[in-house]
Amino acid sequence: MAMTPLHLGKTSALPASPEQAVLDYVPNPRPGSLYLVRFAAPEFTSLCPVTGQPDFAHLVIDYAPGETIVESKSLKLFLGSFRNHAAFHEDCTVGIGERLVAEMQPRWLRIGGYWYPRGGIPIDVFWQSGAPPEGLWVPDQGVAGYRGRG
Amino acid sequence: MAMTPLHLGKTSALPASPEQAVLDYVPNPRPGSLYLVRFAAPEFTSLCPVTGQPDFAHLVIDYAPGETIVESKSLKLFLGSFRNHAAFHEDCTVGIGERLVAEMQPRWLRIGGYWYPRGGIPIDVFWQSGAPPEGLWVPDQGVAGYRGRG
Amino acid sequence: MAMTPLHLGKTSALPASPEQAVLDYVPNPRPGSLYLVRFAAPEFTSLCPVTGQPDFAHLVIDYAPGETIVESKSLKLFLGSFRNHAAFHEDCTVGIGERLVAEMQPRWLRIGGYWYPRGGIPIDVFWQSGAPPEGLWVPDQGVAGYRGRG
Amino acid sequence: MAMTPLHLGKTSALPASPEQAVLDYVPNPRPGSLYLVRFAAPEFTSLCPVTGQPDFAHLVIDYAPGETIVESKSLKLFLGSFRNHAAFHEDCTVGIGERLVAEMQPRWLRIGGYWYPRGGIPIDVFWQSGAPPEGLWVPDQGVAGYRGRG
Amino acid sequence: MAMTPLHLGKTSALPASPEQAVLDYVPNPRPGSLYLVRFAAPEFTSLCPVTGQPDFAHLVIDYAPGETIVESKSLKLFLGSFRNHAAFHEDCTVGIGERLVAEMQPRWLRIGGYWYPRGGIPIDVFWQSGAPPEGLWVPDQGVAGYRGRG
Amino acid sequence: MAMTPLHLGKTSALPASPEQAVLDYVPNPRPGSLYLVRFAAPEFTSLCPVTGQPDFAHLVIDYAPGETIVESKSLKLFLGSFRNHAAFHEDCTVGIGERLVAEMQPRWLRIGGYWYPRGGIPIDVFWQSGAPPEGLWVPDQGVAGYRGRG
Amino acid sequence: MAMTPLHLGKTSALPASPEQAVLDYVPNPRPGSLYLVRFAAPEFTSLCPVTGQPDFAHLVIDYAPGETIVESKSLKLFLGSFRNHAAFHEDCTVGIGERLVAEMQPRWLRIGGYWYPRGGIPIDVFWQSGAPPEGLWVPDQGVAGYRGRG
Amino acid sequence: MAMTPLHLGKTSALPASPEQAVLDYVPNPRPGSLYLVRFAAPEFTSLCPVTGQPDFAHLVIDYAPGETIVESKSLKLFLGSFRNHAAFHEDCTVGIGERLVAEMQPRWLRIGGYWYPRGGIPIDVFWQSGAPPEGLWVPDQGVAGYRGRG
Amino acid sequence: MAMTPLHLGKTSALPASPEQAVLDYVPNPRPGSLYLVRFAAPEFTSLCPVTGQPDFAHLVIDYAPGETIVESKSLKLFLGSFRNHAAFHEDCTVGIGERLVAEMQPRWLRIGGYWYPRGGIPIDVFWQSGAPPEGLWVPDQGVAGYRGRG
Amino acid sequence: MAMTPLHLGKTSALPASPEQAVLDYVPNPRPGSLYLVRFAAPEFTSLCPVTGQPDFAHLVIDYAPGETIVESKSLKLFLGSFRNHAAFHEDCTVGIGERLVAEMQPRWLRIGGYWYPRGGIPIDVFWQSGAPPEGLWVPDQGVAGYRGRG
Ligand SMILES: [Ca+2]
Ligand SMILES: [Ca+2]
Ligand SMILES: [Ca+2]
Ligand SMILES: [Ca+2]
Ligand SMILES: [Ca+2]
Ligand SMILES: [Ca+2]
Ligand SMILES: [Ca+2]
Ligand SMILES: [Ca+2]
Ligand SMILES: [Ca+2]
Ligand SMILES: [Ca+2]
Ligand SMILES: [Ca+2]
Ligand SMILES: [Ca+2]
Ligand SMILES: [Ca+2]
Ligand SMILES: [Ca+2]
Ligand SMILES: [Ca+2]
Ligand SMILES: [Ca+2]
Repeated sequence: MAMTPLHLGKTSALPASPEQAVLDYVPNPRPGSLYLVRFAAPEFTSLCPVTGQPDFAHLVIDYAPGETIVESKSLKLFLGSFRNHAAFHEDCTVGIGERLVAEMQPRWLRIGGYWYPRGGIPIDVFWQSGAPPEGLWVPDQGVAGYRGRG
Repeated sequence: MAMTPLHLGKTSALPASPEQAVLDYVPNPRPGSLYLVRFAAPEFTSLCPVTGQPDFAHLVIDYAPGETIVESKSLKLFLGSFRNHAAFHEDCTVGIGERLVAEMQPRWLRIGGYWYPRGGIPIDVFWQSGAPPEGLWVPDQGVAGYRGRG
Repeated sequence: MAMTPLHLGKTSALPASPEQAVLDYVPNPRPGSLYLVRFAAPEFTSLCPVTGQPDFAHLVIDYAPGETIVESKSLKLFLGSFRNHAAFHEDCTVGIGERLVAEMQPRWLRIGGYWYPRGGIPIDVFWQSGAPPEGLWVPDQGVAGYRGRG
Repeated sequence: MAMTPLHLGKTSALPASPEQAVLDYVPNPRPGSLYLVRFAAPEFTSLCPVTGQPDFAHLVIDYAPGETIVESKSLKLFLGSFRNHAAFHEDCTVGIGERLVAEMQPRWLRIGGYWYPRGGIPIDVFWQSGAPPEGLWVPDQGVAGYRGRG
Repeated sequence: MAMTPLHLGKTSALPASPEQAVLDYVPNPRPGSLYLVRFAAPEFTSLCPVTGQPDFAHLVIDYAPGETIVESKSLKLFLGSFRNHAAFHEDCTVGIGERLVAEMQPRWLRIGGYWYPRGGIPIDVFWQSGAPPEGLWVPDQGVAGYRGRG
Repeated sequence: MAMTPLHLGKTSALPASPEQAVLDYVPNPRPGSLYLVRFAAPEFTSLCPVTGQPDFAHLVIDYAPGETIVESKSLKLFLGSFRNHAAFHEDCTVGIGERLVAEMQPRWLRIGGYWYPRGGIPIDVFWQSGAPPEGLWVPDQGVAGYRGRG
Repeated sequence: MAMTPLHLGKTSALPASPEQAVLDYVPNPRPGSLYLVRFAAPEFTSLCPVTGQPDFAHLVIDYAPGETIVESKSLKLFLGSFRNHAAFHEDCTVGIGERLVAEMQPRWLRIGGYWYPRGGIPIDVFWQSGAPPEGLWVPDQGVAGYRGRG
Repeated sequence: MAMTPLHLGKTSALPASPEQAVLDYVPNPRPGSLYLVRFAAPEFTSLCPVTGQPDFAHLVIDYAPGETIVESKSLKLFLGSFRNHAAFHEDCTVGIGERLVAEMQPRWLRIGGYWYPRGGIPIDVFWQSGAPPEGLWVPDQGVAGYRGRG
Repeated sequence: MAMTPLHLGKTSALPASPEQAVLDYVPNPRPGSLYLVRFAAPEFTSLCPVTGQPDFAHLVIDYAPGETIVESKSLKLFLGSFRNHAAFHEDCTVGIGERLVAEMQPRWLRIGGYWYPRGGIPIDVFWQSGAPPEGLWVPDQGVAGYRGRG
Repeated sequence: MAMTPLHLGKTSALPASPEQAVLDYVPNPRPGSLYLVRFAAPEFTSLCPVTGQPDFAHLVIDYAPGETIVESKSLKLFLGSFRNHAAFHEDCTVGIGERLVAEMQPRWLRIGGYWYPRGGIPIDVFWQSGAPPEGLWVPDQGVAGYRGRG
């Protein structure tokens, strides 16, 4: 595992599917410290498995690094790879969290998926890998609820 | 035209349709003054003429009274009478404005209809009876735009 | 007309009605300047003339002084005198504006009355004494619209 | 229980009453994961059991799926079925929560009902099926309080 | 105790004092459920016991019903009965909470009183009948702090 | 031109490109009235013509109908057809506006494109078909500016 | 200790220093109740002990009364007495809290000092007399963080 | 007139009164350009001429420079010199504007004074030296109105 | 002038000074259309010419393209080149606007510079190249004013 | 350790690197009190270690002083010294926290780094020196999440 990111500072094509996306993990620069990293990703889109129509979501991922951290450009490409992928909101959100946990083996991770409304009713999905470690500082994600109009 | 409101202080049944609703106009208590009255009606619902599903809107009506003002409880009942009425957003919004103008004959009237999103895209409809009278103070309606999530 | 305010720095009883309230006008300290004074009065209450129930409003008054300015404590007492006064929203709002114009003879005045909802529909009333004088700076009152819940 | 949703991708008529509404439960795509699903439903309306007048609410439902998840279009139709149903705010809100618990048997569920004001005073109702499971992430619903005007 | 509300759907005069106000308690429609009811009452006014001047407050009341719930129109009239009542902010806020507890015997109750500023400094008062019951969901009241201008 | 929408109430596949998308125009239900229709479309994505990476935008379209109105589901599919289309922000935004004008021949149209930041700097694009018609009411679009963090 | 406030309803000169300010404590009108009183004081100013320049702060004080409550006008004068007093932000904030505790002997007290930026970096100071009493309801102070511009 | 600011980069004592404050004007670095400079000054305090009590305001000053610009540290000291100065809100606000115009001779200037509430009613004062020059861009000051509580 | 951007899709070093920065102008893709492009740049920093300390600003640039548009990555590098450049706020803001006008020759351009506070008083600078062209749609920049704390 | 700050009231050059910056610690004026000091620093910039491009962040530092407090002007200079320093977001944020802990030996410290988006995805970093001391009051930092556009 080397400090040469695969993507940072280069132009990389969007992977065709989540399966083809390769996440890049680099050594944690503060391996002895217990801290939280938060990514906000408001540019997420996938497809509905029933109708084939596009879905959109605002995702927020929080994790406490173990031996590695995920390089943010590879994360961006991974999230971009859902562009032509069809899955239910619940499946998609939890699946992103579980893949990151399986590959990166952080001390802890959670993901909030805030989906755009369908039929006037948006779905939010909240998943975490377990209770957060003692002593970790975990602020609220603070994404506003949907409120219709007025 | 008498100062005995039809509905105020009493319980009245919801009219079955806009056609059956009777709006109540009482004398303008300040007939010599040019002023604006604004109603905000966030509790509006009608039906989609194609699918039969419920639609919801936040309506804001501004008018400059002439000889009468509309009694607010009768307005509430009139708006409530759309509950089982099917019409397109554009038709419904402009139609409410045009009926009030035809019956009340205000100096001026406008209506903004801020509809809840369908297919991820809300529609707003803005209609006025003409240019506002000189010297009338007309503040923005200031209803927030729809912004999805995040 | 003297620079000894009737009320400022003293305790004054609330007048029993608008008719009994005495507004105090003191010399304009900048009589040669064209400027705007704005009062925000979120503590206004009166009674409904039909049901006798309390009504509440947030009032904003803007005026361009002529030879006098209204002393703010006397204005507070005048507004407080509506506590047991019964009048329609339209009447009450325009009436406050017209009395101030008649007594103070400002270069210009306007009043916005933002009433709390009844039957789910609030009423706002906007009146001005005419078009504002050339060169007067008149910012928006910027009171938020009512939006129900959510 | 099959992965063929009753309503998704089709047009379904609004059920005439909550009793006639059929909720559709599909297999939880992440049955081994403890996570939260949130629905925001700002398009809810029912009738007042005393006056027959329409009531409106913004509902937010949170649950941790067990073996099934509720299909969102069937949920939308169920909520729409209250359109001609008369019940008190407290009864209606808690009743929706209890029916979902009884039928879906989630690990946990709660519902917040944020009702539009009547008589100047809105009612909010907050119910949950018990204490949330250990390790479940449950963000605040974050619906703004009612603040009148000004 | 009958399901015939004293006031709902009728016009009732404002009680002359809190002592004369009669609160109406109706059977809890969900007696076996532990849930929270929240009332927001931004239209509250009383008198200052030292100066006799009007005071204004925004009140929020949260309670977990026992055998009864308080009918909201009778609550409105009870709160309206403070219009000519003189008491300190602390006394008034805690007193409303304690009377509701004594009469209704809820499982738990709290009241937040958010008073308009006097001398540039507003007072907020927060009282509860004890620690909330285990398993009750109690969201923040979320009333914004006072921030002066700018 | 018939009142049978191509898409409303049916499931339609996403067109493969803007060229293949067919917009559906139905008769204006209020042809004699001068009014404005606003669409907010926060679910827009296209591709960067230089890097091939996804771009995202929030679009707001305002128009004054002539003989037809655009059916909103066909508009949704048209906007969705940019999913695999590569164009600069300026080109894309103005192009959507110009196509709608050419096909629908409204009295007036404008489009605001609010693009997500790239390199820390978002681009907004504002185009209109000319000065708005006299007497048309055109509220601000009111989309918040980008402000980075903090 | 008598129920005759020193200052309320009278005009009192500003004390020349905190040492000269006399705080007025009156009997707690609800001595058997555990409740919280919050004062928001956005009109605070003192002097920098190094440069002599004015400093400004927004202060929020929370306390649970014991046998007395502090009269709010005397509190206002006490806070005003810092106008010509020089002290560091930390010293000033904690000192106000500690003086109130020493004199009033509340069950609990805390103070938040939100100071205006100097050199682009504001300082906030948070002090409390100990852990809050069991069963006391203590809402967040909710003062917004400083965010520079944009 | 030299490019050596009197105060910038040095520590200067607060002037004892507005009369003793010396404003520092330096050459306009863009003398051929018509542009607007805005200062926001939320740290303003003076004294009430009747009661001697402190007053607070948030001031915003806009001007179009002529041959000079005002150095911002000298402006800060000038505004600080009102700390022990007694004047009415109207007098103080307009007076600051008129002194800057007289000394600096800008192409145009305006000042908005947003005063903290007294007696529950804040006063805002808006003055400008005349109509703004053609072609000058003058954005709204956008200071929020006072809204009491709730 | 060719459609091969100098920087887009590549890594470019930050220019050492504004003089060394080369802005890249590419053909306007919609040369026959009158439209507005807005850039928001919250990541701007320069140096104070008197103290050498860093200054920060949020910049917003609006322009109506003529024959070219400015490529956004070259704009980013140009703005980044002020990192070690010393200039007054007024000079810097107007200078950026004037350079873009001189080089790009747009139909119209304006720049708003919203600087972080120094000495408690932020400066905003607003410049435009002249009155905007007839028929151009120019929304407010809508950057919030500075409000200190509280 | 003396009460003569190195920098306060003087002009100091920006240190060339974090290593060269000297933080100034002065005696805690309230050494016996357990309290929290919060610094908000929205004017932070460093360099990307891979591309050399500028990065920006909004930092918030909370600490409970032990025997000393950090003098705020020296903190400002220390933060300014990252202007030409290259480090990853995670490294930089945690490193600032750990240096302050090592040198100042506070009872407790935490730092939140809210970084501006890159590639559409901002990173937040949250680190603390351990669990906060019992009885310390630690409000949320309350920095808004990134939400893209719309
Ligand atoms: Ca929808
Ligand atoms: Ca978003
Ligand atoms: Ca109501
Ligand atoms: Ca709503
Ligand atoms: Ca919370
Ligand atoms: Ca209010
Ligand atoms: Ca406007
Ligand atoms: Ca500063
Ligand atoms: Ca910023
Ligand atoms: Ca006050
Ligand atoms: Ca405006
Ligand atoms: Ca400052
Ligand atoms: Ca303030
Ligand atoms: Ca970016
Ligand atoms: Ca919290
Ligand atoms: Ca968005």
